[in-house]
Amino acid sequence: MNKGKLVVIGGDAAGMSAASKVRRAQPDREIVVFERGKHTSYAACGMPYYIAGQVSDSDQLIARKPEVFREKQNIDVRILHEVIKIDTEGRRVEVKNLEDNRTFWESYEELLIATGASPIRPDFEGIESDGIFGLSTLQTGIDVFDYIEKNSPKRAVIVGGGYIGIEMAEALLDLDMKVTLFDMAPQVMTTMDKDMADLIADYMRDSGVDLYLNEKLEKFESKNGTVTSVKTDKRNEDADLVILGMGVNPNTALTDGTPIEAGVKGAIKVNKKLQTTVPGIWAAGDCSESYHLIKKEQTWIALGTVANKHGLVAGINLSDGDMEFPGVCGTAITKFKELEISRTGLSEKELEESGIKFKTATIESRTRSGYYPGSDKITVKLIAEESSGKVLGGQIVGFPGSAKRIDTIVTAITAGMTAQNIVDLDLSYAPPFSPVWDPVQTAARRLV
Amino acid sequence: MNKGKLVVIGGDAAGMSAASKVRRAQPDREIVVFERGKHTSYAACGMPYYIAGQVSDSDQLIARKPEVFREKQNIDVRILHEVIKIDTEGRRVEVKNLEDNRTFWESYEELLIATGASPIRPDFEGIESDGIFGLSTLQTGIDVFDYIEKNSPKRAVIVGGGYIGIEMAEALLDLDMKVTLFDMAPQVMTTMDKDMADLIADYMRDSGVDLYLNEKLEKFESKNGTVTSVKTDKRNEDADLVILGMGVNPNTALTDGTPIEAGVKGAIKVNKKLQTTVPGIWAAGDCSESYHLIKKEQTWIALGTVANKHGLVAGINLSDGDMEFPGVCGTAITKFKELEISRTGLSEKELEESGIKFKTATIESRTRSGYYPGSDKITVKLIAEESSGKVLGGQIVGFPGSAKRIDTIVTAITAGMTAQNIVDLDLSYAPPFSPVWDPVQTAARRLV
Repeated sequence: MNKGKLVVIGGDAAGMSAASKVRRAQPDREIVVFERGKHTSYAACGMPYYIAGQVSDSDQLIARKPEVFREKQNIDVRILHEVIKIDTEGRRVEVKNLEDNRTFWESYEELLIATGASPIRPDFEGIESDGIFGLSTLQTGIDVFDYIEKNSPKRAVIVGGGYIGIEMAEALLDLDMKVTLFDMAPQVMTTMDKDMADLIADYMRDSGVDLYLNEKLEKFESKNGTVTSVKTDKRNEDADLVILGMGVNPNTALTDGTPIEAGVKGAIKVNKKLQTTVPGIWAAGDCSESYHLIKKEQTWIALGTVANKHGLVAGINLSDGDMEFPGVCGTAITKFKELEISRTGLSEKELEESGIKFKTATIESRTRSGYYPGSDKITVKLIAEESSGKVLGGQIVGFPGSAKRIDTIVTAITAGMTAQNIVDLDLSYAPPFSPVWDPVQTAARRLV
Repeated sequence: MNKGKLVVIGGDAAGMSAASKVRRAQPDREIVVFERGKHTSYAACGMPYYIAGQVSDSDQLIARKPEVFREKQNIDVRILHEVIKIDTEGRRVEVKNLEDNRTFWESYEELLIATGASPIRPDFEGIESDGIFGLSTLQTGIDVFDYIEKNSPKRAVIVGGGYIGIEMAEALLDLDMKVTLFDMAPQVMTTMDKDMADLIADYMRDSGVDLYLNEKLEKFESKNGTVTSVKTDKRNEDADLVILGMGVNPNTALTDGTPIEAGVKGAIKVNKKLQTTVPGIWAAGDCSESYHLIKKEQTWIALGTVANKHGLVAGINLSDGDMEFPGVCGTAITKFKELEISRTGLSEKELEESGIKFKTATIESRTRSGYYPGSDKITVKLIAEESSGKVLGGQIVGFPGSAKRIDTIVTAITAGMTAQNIVDLDLSYAPPFSPVWDPVQTAARRLV
């Protein structure tokens, strides 16, 4: 069954995964993708490593270029084309060609909105100065890289201690800058509990980051239009480069004034099939909601893995299949220099808010057998429902070999396992890989 | 409830875990442990790394020494005491003090047999020559280390390409020996399927191991009582050090002629509570059977993790608790130089024998995002039941960061997940850790 012309807004992970999936199922269908930037299907998560010089060419971050989609998959990808209006009644979108500024209408039978998310840029004095960057599209990463190449900044200020803030702190330290990081919260990584986040903060400070928590940004000062310092409620810090890591918002301006409803945190409201509230219109990736497996409600999580899975599910439903998005656990992973960080499920903070009674175990163990070379510290926190013992969340902070262990916890949570079930698992052990009891099991043993 | 005097035969992982667990639950109970060697609670799996010089002192392999058990836990551990007879009628064991060769009888209310396993030493001509070693107790590892120190062997032959064979090949290459490995099977690592084992064999050959498969050992030649060469059905290989890695057998001579029945592969028959066929007598660790979660029958697996869990379960049941051994999946992990190797569940070979219809996917992916420094090859094989899609087995061969991913498969198999369930998992992704789709999921996607 060919449902007619498909228009996709946004040519990154979700949009292009969906378009590719539809193409494989429906070789003859007309598929048009409008992308306002120059790039398609890129690894936004790789930008900090590109900026640090660990990835030699920004092209390496691109999984597939527009011309490849056009030539190999017969997908009509039009870069530098921005959709500026959706006419849900008339089943058409208004598109602006950013090269010649001309606009035109394009009709659709089905529409997929995959517009992504953008960094929050609060309305502080001086925020439009040169040298202040958020990271979202590949182009923003290239812009930061080029700015550093051209201006050789020495003093960097990062605002926000989340994933982007932490990864950029590593990148800019690698480039021998003096790095200062501010966060208004009393901890970095607010998706983790404070005890675990404190381990990260200590290590960041030991590694040379000037880390100031509980500090509110007030304004940016500039000279000749270029940033010179960052003022908080407690200090004034010189800066010739500023990175904004204050989170992202879903790109949903297009749906304002349409019957396409907004949901959690302003993301586009979707059901598990990724249908919006308007028949024939779908949404996927960072701009749309996701089902949370543990909270058992819609949530909003902007992450590459989720965007890819959304794209797959939307692509199946847009062609001949029928699939529900399986849901997220809230899994995330990152690192700062040698320190690996991961989390999944609900934190203590989230559980307190939800009113679920829980118990927690936090243990310190080793990444390998204690006597094996390279064995190092790993801290694992496990949280389980008090009544049932069911594991609801996990957090890991530790040295190489630590963070990917979160996948065991993700799988256990998804399966509804208790802490005892985790103790019982026949996990792998050999001295180069683990103590006899894997640290995840050591934490679980404290809960039974 | 204190069930009276507990005697434990064997002072390594299973025996000492059980004794410690009983002690915590029953502070006043009399607990006697007889250990025929000099060491207790040691990490036998660490021996190859000790021999290679990566672990500076054999004491580092010892988790807890006999005097610590005596002083801190009031457990009467008697090293260099060998139990030579079990009198099940009289509820007593005959013990030989190996220092003065005197024997005595010791009574028990309950008995735990944790005698471990020993390397197979087939009755080949010359096998008793000096310079030929199996690895089992910590002392055997120390013996190999000391022999190398004293004799500086240059040409090593390893017989058997299983875990011990592979780990010792790495260790002896590290010591700059010429290393030859023979196996009578057409592949190394017979617990894996041949396609995966071939990846290992290729890498071993590339790393300088002279690897000969399909070769049968015929005899050892020696001069003045010391080994000089190994003769197979195809060649004669000079050797001044030989390591036997031909597998192990459970140490069950003690139960011969008693009503304590033997089970799978001659291991002591136990139920899930680790009770033998004689009331009041328990068995745990490498000498006893284990329940196999997927085969749903008793099996025999000699591994440190299993021994530790056996010890815990036996300890609980011997004191005031009630616990069943949760079962094994057949998980194992090792490495050869940079190549990591792991497996769990059933192999194609095992499934063919069982008559279960299955489907298989083998994929090649990357350990990290392709553009991230250090990204390298990983091969994942997943096997699922044809009718239900339930995952039944997994095998991984790849470079650093590969093998511990088996734990995700272990957890999924234990939970009864299908390949689609694995695709649906919210596994962790960031460029330093994984491609967007974890390689385990990439394999699972091929099965749905």
